[in-house]
Amino acid sequence: MTDFNKRLDQYADLLVRVGINLQPGQELIITSSIEHADLARRVVAKAYDAGARRVSVDWSDPQTSRMTLARADAEALGEYPAPLAKWREEHLEKGGAQLAIVGNDPKLMAGIDPQRISTLQQATARATQAIAGYTATMRRSWSIGAAAVQGWADSAMAHLPAEERVPALWDAILKACRVYGDNDPVADWQVHLARLAKWVTFLNEKKFARLHYKGPGTDLVIDLPQNHVWISAGNAANEKGVPFCPNMPTEEVFTAPAREGVNGVVRSTLPLNYGGTLIKELSLRFEKGRVVAFSASEGQEVLQGLFDTDEGARYLGEVALVPIDSPINQTGILFYNTLFDENASCHLAVGRAYPICVEGGGSMSSEQRLAAGLNQSVTHVDFMIGSPALDIDGELPTGELVPLFRKGMWV
Amino acid sequence: MTDFNKRLDQYADLLVRVGINLQPGQELIITSSIEHADLARRVVAKAYDAGARRVSVDWSDPQTSRMTLARADAEALGEYPAPLAKWREEHLEKGGAQLAIVGNDPKLMAGIDPQRISTLQQATARATQAIAGYTATMRRSWSIGAAAVQGWADSAMAHLPAEERVPALWDAILKACRVYGDNDPVADWQVHLARLAKWVTFLNEKKFARLHYKGPGTDLVIDLPQNHVWISAGNAANEKGVPFCPNMPTEEVFTAPAREGVNGVVRSTLPLNYGGTLIKELSLRFEKGRVVAFSASEGQEVLQGLFDTDEGARYLGEVALVPIDSPINQTGILFYNTLFDENASCHLAVGRAYPICVEGGGSMSSEQRLAAGLNQSVTHVDFMIGSPALDIDGELPTGELVPLFRKGMWV
Repeated sequence: MTDFNKRLDQYADLLVRVGINLQPGQELIITSSIEHADLARRVVAKAYDAGARRVSVDWSDPQTSRMTLARADAEALGEYPAPLAKWREEHLEKGGAQLAIVGNDPKLMAGIDPQRISTLQQATARATQAIAGYTATMRRSWSIGAAAVQGWADSAMAHLPAEERVPALWDAILKACRVYGDNDPVADWQVHLARLAKWVTFLNEKKFARLHYKGPGTDLVIDLPQNHVWISAGNAANEKGVPFCPNMPTEEVFTAPAREGVNGVVRSTLPLNYGGTLIKELSLRFEKGRVVAFSASEGQEVLQGLFDTDEGARYLGEVALVPIDSPINQTGILFYNTLFDENASCHLAVGRAYPICVEGGGSMSSEQRLAAGLNQSVTHVDFMIGSPALDIDGELPTGELVPLFRKGMWV
Repeated sequence: MTDFNKRLDQYADLLVRVGINLQPGQELIITSSIEHADLARRVVAKAYDAGARRVSVDWSDPQTSRMTLARADAEALGEYPAPLAKWREEHLEKGGAQLAIVGNDPKLMAGIDPQRISTLQQATARATQAIAGYTATMRRSWSIGAAAVQGWADSAMAHLPAEERVPALWDAILKACRVYGDNDPVADWQVHLARLAKWVTFLNEKKFARLHYKGPGTDLVIDLPQNHVWISAGNAANEKGVPFCPNMPTEEVFTAPAREGVNGVVRSTLPLNYGGTLIKELSLRFEKGRVVAFSASEGQEVLQGLFDTDEGARYLGEVALVPIDSPINQTGILFYNTLFDENASCHLAVGRAYPICVEGGGSMSSEQRLAAGLNQSVTHVDFMIGSPALDIDGELPTGELVPLFRKGMWV
């Protein structure tokens, strides 16, 4: 077995044992592009090694998706087949786990009418709302991993000759996921997750009332809900108390902002890949939590579609802290993929808040969540704001300011 | 564009325009292995060219299927997810068309416990019964095409060096489907389908009471139902009267035998690939339509599983006439794939009869179909009996014998 094959198997094993933490007798659905079949098949094998009752793969094909977005009847794009969502819902209902393997050409949807992309995205978000409910509340174990493909590597590794890009991207993915030569990735992840859990403990003890962000194009104050809870992958566990790691890689600690307590301006520091379209130099102005003005140097129309998804798409749902010395940021690579880029630096998300980000949120009704300050939406989209010029202060309930980040790093 | 790419596009076009005969505004679901993505994507493009409202691909992966058959919980194999069948049912209900792209390694399931294969096959057949109803009655347009893959080529082209097998198999597939160098495949298919329709007219005018088969290991008499109808792809049309061609290639004219009117013995002349297992030298003894004894030199256990599917699996559901000078037989290749091998020579099928094979059968109730002599089952499996030593006589209602086949050829 070559070194590369060995490391792919280690990554597959890591996704099953640490990402999902699959329990004997549990079922697993993997969503994967057909172009990621090599990794997906390795995960299937590792899941059966771990005692899976059954493993199913829900395949998609980016080329077919592009043709459909470009050429299908406009009305048909708004019709997500309900039984396909039902299948995954029933699986989660019965306690099944879910793994997504991601990694597409970020320019896949270039040239497609943004209105058509929005129609499909909104229909999908609506139809899969119950599925998102299971993952957002952490009731079920789920994770996201990544696999390299040429189209993605062409963006992330554009500085290299074409034939070197896929191997280089794989190398970056595996390093970002702590799969090196001779280390024990599972053991390394336990150490890493314990460290994230420690930051979370610190932040939860401080009970900050609000966060102050300052940087180029950014002057933002984010109130935190009274009973907010900071979370990291180091603290994630499902309904039964079985720990899992929702993203691989992951470097973030995050909580929910108070829905109506966000004021000021913020500018993104990395392009955002939304449904195959890049949104660059996003700038948002918030008043009482709501986006009242927005602009982007590219992808403005897709951004409009995002904010038109529902009212909640105009409010923040996540605030996440990541130091710029994260292994992902240290690769120096812009991955053009949220799973990686969001773990390179501090970020925010518009849309749905994770209910578990306030005490008891997991078992609250919709109305109670809203009252607790948790935003609600069918969508959830991250954008990066970290940089070597970002400072963050935490304001204690007493009004005292505690420096948290200076020049993009934990103080 | 290379010649090969041109011919693949012609084949994709043929599947859409002659196989499905897709109408503008119609939806299409393609079922395909991820290993057939090249042909599947070409079909998607041709379907949008033809004005498809939306095209979806229901992907599967033979490697994942094998792992699941080998390693999933035994009980889980008997649980086909109902929503996945529901999705395709709703599609057909709304008038959608269906195309299957087939072509697997015939040894894919070698070494897997036949009992587990039977469990999965039976669960699938039960869950997809409504779907099979739409296709068996020809209410909807459907077709089956094929694509080469290494595992299949390794069997069908074993006499060639490994790297020449896939191109050689593609060549054989395209020739069998009348996609040559400079011909117009769509026009050639219209001529071919008209010829099949002519045989059907002759047989339907004669109204034979029964057929007598004689050959090595075969001495069989098959009664035909009183109002039987001979069918070929040249006569296939959906509920709305739109013609389509259910198989590409196709050379057969077929009808239903009288369920309880089959007596004698028959021996298969080609191996049968059933769910990835080869069944060789199948020999069946019929009494009053029922299989009362069976044997095979290989695959006996899988055969047992097939006959245990339901009571109807032990009765014949199809009788088909194909001369041994068919283009497929002339390639001299054993394809190890029913779509091709059944069109190389005369064959029979156990299991479900096509209701349209008796007058008015499409709109009969289950009870009426049974009374009309049509067999019912969740399964339908073809096996080949044609050879240069096969003679067939048709017996007129007067008792007079009309020679139909001598030495495997139309008289």
